[in-house]
Amino acid sequence: MYSAPVEDISHALRHVAGLQEAMDQGETGELSPDLLEAILAEAARFAEERIAPLSASGDREGTRLEGGKVTTPKGWRELYREWIDGGWNSLTGPEAHGGQGLPMSLAVAAAEMWNSASMSFAIGPTLTTGAVEALESHGSDELKQRYLEKLVSGEWMGTMNLTEPQAGSDLSALKTRAEPVGDGTYRIFGQKIYITYGEHDFTDNIVHLVLARLPDAPAGVKGISLFLVPKMLVEADGSLGRRNDVICAGLEHKLGLHGSPTCTMIYGDGSAEGEAPGAIGWLIGEENRGLACMFTMMNNARLLVGIQGVGIAEAATQKALRFAHERRQGRSTRLARDNSEAGGAMTPIAEHPDVTRMLLTMKALTAACRAIAYACGHAGDRAKATAGDPTASKAWAERASLLTPVAKAFSTDIGVEVASLGVQVHGGMGYVEETGAAQLLRDARIAPIYEGTNGIQAIDLVTRKIGLSEGAAFENYMLELRAVVETVETKNDPSFGQTAEMLDHALSDLSSATAFLRNALDKGDMETALAGATPYLRLFGLTAGGVYLAKSALAADPEGQRTALARFMAENLLAETNALCAQVRQGAASLAAARIAIGLEA
Amino acid sequence: MYSAPVEDISHALRHVAGLQEAMDQGETGELSPDLLEAILAEAARFAEERIAPLSASGDREGTRLEGGKVTTPKGWRELYREWIDGGWNSLTGPEAHGGQGLPMSLAVAAAEMWNSASMSFAIGPTLTTGAVEALESHGSDELKQRYLEKLVSGEWMGTMNLTEPQAGSDLSALKTRAEPVGDGTYRIFGQKIYITYGEHDFTDNIVHLVLARLPDAPAGVKGISLFLVPKMLVEADGSLGRRNDVICAGLEHKLGLHGSPTCTMIYGDGSAEGEAPGAIGWLIGEENRGLACMFTMMNNARLLVGIQGVGIAEAATQKALRFAHERRQGRSTRLARDNSEAGGAMTPIAEHPDVTRMLLTMKALTAACRAIAYACGHAGDRAKATAGDPTASKAWAERASLLTPVAKAFSTDIGVEVASLGVQVHGGMGYVEETGAAQLLRDARIAPIYEGTNGIQAIDLVTRKIGLSEGAAFENYMLELRAVVETVETKNDPSFGQTAEMLDHALSDLSSATAFLRNALDKGDMETALAGATPYLRLFGLTAGGVYLAKSALAADPEGQRTALARFMAENLLAETNALCAQVRQGAASLAAARIAIGLEA
Repeated sequence: MYSAPVEDISHALRHVAGLQEAMDQGETGELSPDLLEAILAEAARFAEERIAPLSASGDREGTRLEGGKVTTPKGWRELYREWIDGGWNSLTGPEAHGGQGLPMSLAVAAAEMWNSASMSFAIGPTLTTGAVEALESHGSDELKQRYLEKLVSGEWMGTMNLTEPQAGSDLSALKTRAEPVGDGTYRIFGQKIYITYGEHDFTDNIVHLVLARLPDAPAGVKGISLFLVPKMLVEADGSLGRRNDVICAGLEHKLGLHGSPTCTMIYGDGSAEGEAPGAIGWLIGEENRGLACMFTMMNNARLLVGIQGVGIAEAATQKALRFAHERRQGRSTRLARDNSEAGGAMTPIAEHPDVTRMLLTMKALTAACRAIAYACGHAGDRAKATAGDPTASKAWAERASLLTPVAKAFSTDIGVEVASLGVQVHGGMGYVEETGAAQLLRDARIAPIYEGTNGIQAIDLVTRKIGLSEGAAFENYMLELRAVVETVETKNDPSFGQTAEMLDHALSDLSSATAFLRNALDKGDMETALAGATPYLRLFGLTAGGVYLAKSALAADPEGQRTALARFMAENLLAETNALCAQVRQGAASLAAARIAIGLEA
Repeated sequence: MYSAPVEDISHALRHVAGLQEAMDQGETGELSPDLLEAILAEAARFAEERIAPLSASGDREGTRLEGGKVTTPKGWRELYREWIDGGWNSLTGPEAHGGQGLPMSLAVAAAEMWNSASMSFAIGPTLTTGAVEALESHGSDELKQRYLEKLVSGEWMGTMNLTEPQAGSDLSALKTRAEPVGDGTYRIFGQKIYITYGEHDFTDNIVHLVLARLPDAPAGVKGISLFLVPKMLVEADGSLGRRNDVICAGLEHKLGLHGSPTCTMIYGDGSAEGEAPGAIGWLIGEENRGLACMFTMMNNARLLVGIQGVGIAEAATQKALRFAHERRQGRSTRLARDNSEAGGAMTPIAEHPDVTRMLLTMKALTAACRAIAYACGHAGDRAKATAGDPTASKAWAERASLLTPVAKAFSTDIGVEVASLGVQVHGGMGYVEETGAAQLLRDARIAPIYEGTNGIQAIDLVTRKIGLSEGAAFENYMLELRAVVETVETKNDPSFGQTAEMLDHALSDLSSATAFLRNALDKGDMETALAGATPYLRLFGLTAGGVYLAKSALAADPEGQRTALARFMAENLLAETNALCAQVRQGAASLAAARIAIGLEA
């Protein structure tokens, strides 16, 4: 029942994120407006007609592990094949290796649709994208030649193997070891957990990227190296050789994402009989620089998790809207002239102000986090497209860096919030699995956790991003946001209500909170920065999102819906920014004073 | 692993809700402080040792329906038997029918523990409590004599049958019909859905209370009558006769509450062979006055759902605290003198400010909604205890009425929020079902929906409760809250930080929002009242909860933990009240302007 909001997506890409400008300036290569629309329409059709119908059954059926083999839900293997045959895996891949070299922002828009249709299905290729990036940036020519084309096409899938039981958010504690054999290969030994699509039946080979420690490596994160470990060894001619010593030893039973296998992977337990023990791996990049290689792909990986939040929020909003327009209960005080209880027909629940509020909140927050995510992806594209102009390129790259933690954390928080509101709008039916609203909540709940918890994103934003180029990256962003608000003010269109005023307040709150945190950091007061990080990130997301909704309305709004939504967001949801600013300021002192209430030393 | 917070519970009951004062004034009958502590300790032991160990297995196993029979999870039937043998079902039951006649607030405290241990188990008896109340208040002597003792003891359980597919929040649409036979009995025909514990194997008989329409009944809610329909007919001597014509036709597949059977019940499909069709029922109360009978028990039923939120929040907080004190990742910037990444041991994650914030938020919100729920239960008790003084009794009854929607909606919203934070604190482990954090979130999610959605609670608060006795009930409550804040001010203890100031602001916001809404209602502007209801209820809950935490700290705080928590709540969480007040004021205009954004007519 998912219907891709192609019009909204295209408008947000072109007129909010800035793709129109980039196209106008000839920065997008082959991507013309016509091609853009054609691709979006085609992606919409695939998401609606092919992926969405398999989402609920995939959730019910889940994945199975037998004898080291993982079976995905019925029809998913064929779906994946159809998806890669459509060229969807290779949108942004390097043209030298069969990719289409299209802008990341376009892939992000498509990814929103895949995730709205089925987050469990969509997450697999996300990992492949990361593997392609790591390999492209840091792999040897031989590794690239042997693996890249098949990863770009999707014939093989990639995985990321970071987490171990004792090393989650803190990778310094990881223990998986890599022993150099002397022939350029390494033998990998260790256990990795929570490996998404670590084993499955979509492809004949799976290319694992694995963080491990060399024998003489320094302690901590400076002693971590990145290895490529294929499930099936690949011969020089590209054909598949024997099985490598890596197996899936278990699948997690998760709250959601049931269609996506989350694997415990064992490297080097001797399962490849007759061979020397250890999974055979190849170094990617330099020794002990594994984390740096991971960081290369971190921006896009985080953005792609952020878009999961957007996709879920969109799906939940649509579902709730449809339900609320159909389901009739009670009589609206607004519509009913005859307000006697027994008189007249029951009204669609969307008419009841409390439900109207929930639906508008869902729709506004979804549009807000969509805009942020697209703007983030677009900034990365511009950084590449303007490579010839180092100043411009750096500014765009910093914009992408600045927005990445917001795109990840704000969007995934919104994904959970909106999915939960979706359950509420459905009433009792929302709690029953058949409706599908509950599945969206279950699926959404992982996104604030993985790929760096949202707390870690907030810390990244505060301690590394707002100070980029001495704060110039942030200030430039503020200028852009302020310009939008000034346009709203100048336009003086009464249908915007108090939008400009409320956005102005929000920008002041964001500005003030930023100055406060930067000042704390300048004084080396890390506690204050850390304590205020989470409310700060939400303040950032709400403010940027609110401004983007206004920008969207200013660009074109034939039916007045965008203006209405921007106004609702500004007048209602941005009322929160003042409190968030206060929480940033109060944070450290208040946390310090309260520690004893949770058993920490005063 | 649940450990009942007996100290917190007792303190909240005695010194926040006011049970100590009631005991001092001899209003609590046999309930002395010693007896109170003994009962709480015993309830704690039962919840920890007997109920909690069966929660996870009950969730995994769920319930099964075969041939109309529902099997509950392994061990649950025996657990229920043990629970009623301990006298837990009869705590508040009428003494004339074998009950212990203890205060409701004590039962509420015990119910918190049952719900922390297993909401799926605890919910069954909640329905029996409702049936006892309805029968006691409105049943004929014969019905009371035949059913009440066994419902009070728990030998039989009761159910509430309201919802039908087309009649959820709006009961005016219900279609189940009752045909008078002429001998004082009725024949019931219809389908009811979402019937909690509608069928099970705990007891030999189940007493259904069913809303249905008489043939000549007026349309709408004024034509609804309440019937008692036993699963097994009961002979004059109290023995069980033949099976009545009511069956469970299906179980819902729900997001959570897997241990609790949610049934579709069919009345009068002819399953009792050889008999005239229709389930045999007896009228409770007067014809067409069924909804009034339901309202009798509504206050307690809503409070008991509210306490589910408290119970879940407490369980989630405990689990997260335990995990965060044990799990080590990263190095605290606060603790580590040597802050080099590889130096020193990893710190418990509770030390990281962002996690500290989540834990404090969980703990503060849990304590806040506990206090509100207990205060609500206590007010109902005082209304009964002061029956000889109509003025006092009315004031207490209105206090209970005022607090009921807040106790229901605020607590259950908090239950979901805190359970979701609990998942987040656990990181990846929170998403894996084995940890149990996810189960709490799944279980919690129903409570804002049933027993009147939280939106309906908010409307009840605004349109019916804040205007009780021309607003005197609300004003008296404000006086009590203000007195607490004045005491904090007078005490001038620096460890309270800005608590008094922030509470003062919150009270002003609540006062101003209340005046705004009452003014709108006075002018007949229902839309404004409805549009602001949900933010208003949260504003009410946060403010009352914040004041109660201060009251708790003022009463006794040997280790300073209560003061610390009150301060955190005031300085951080109450920053939100200003925004909520603004949302109340902006509500209607803003919703009206934005309607077109969700496809409603302008």
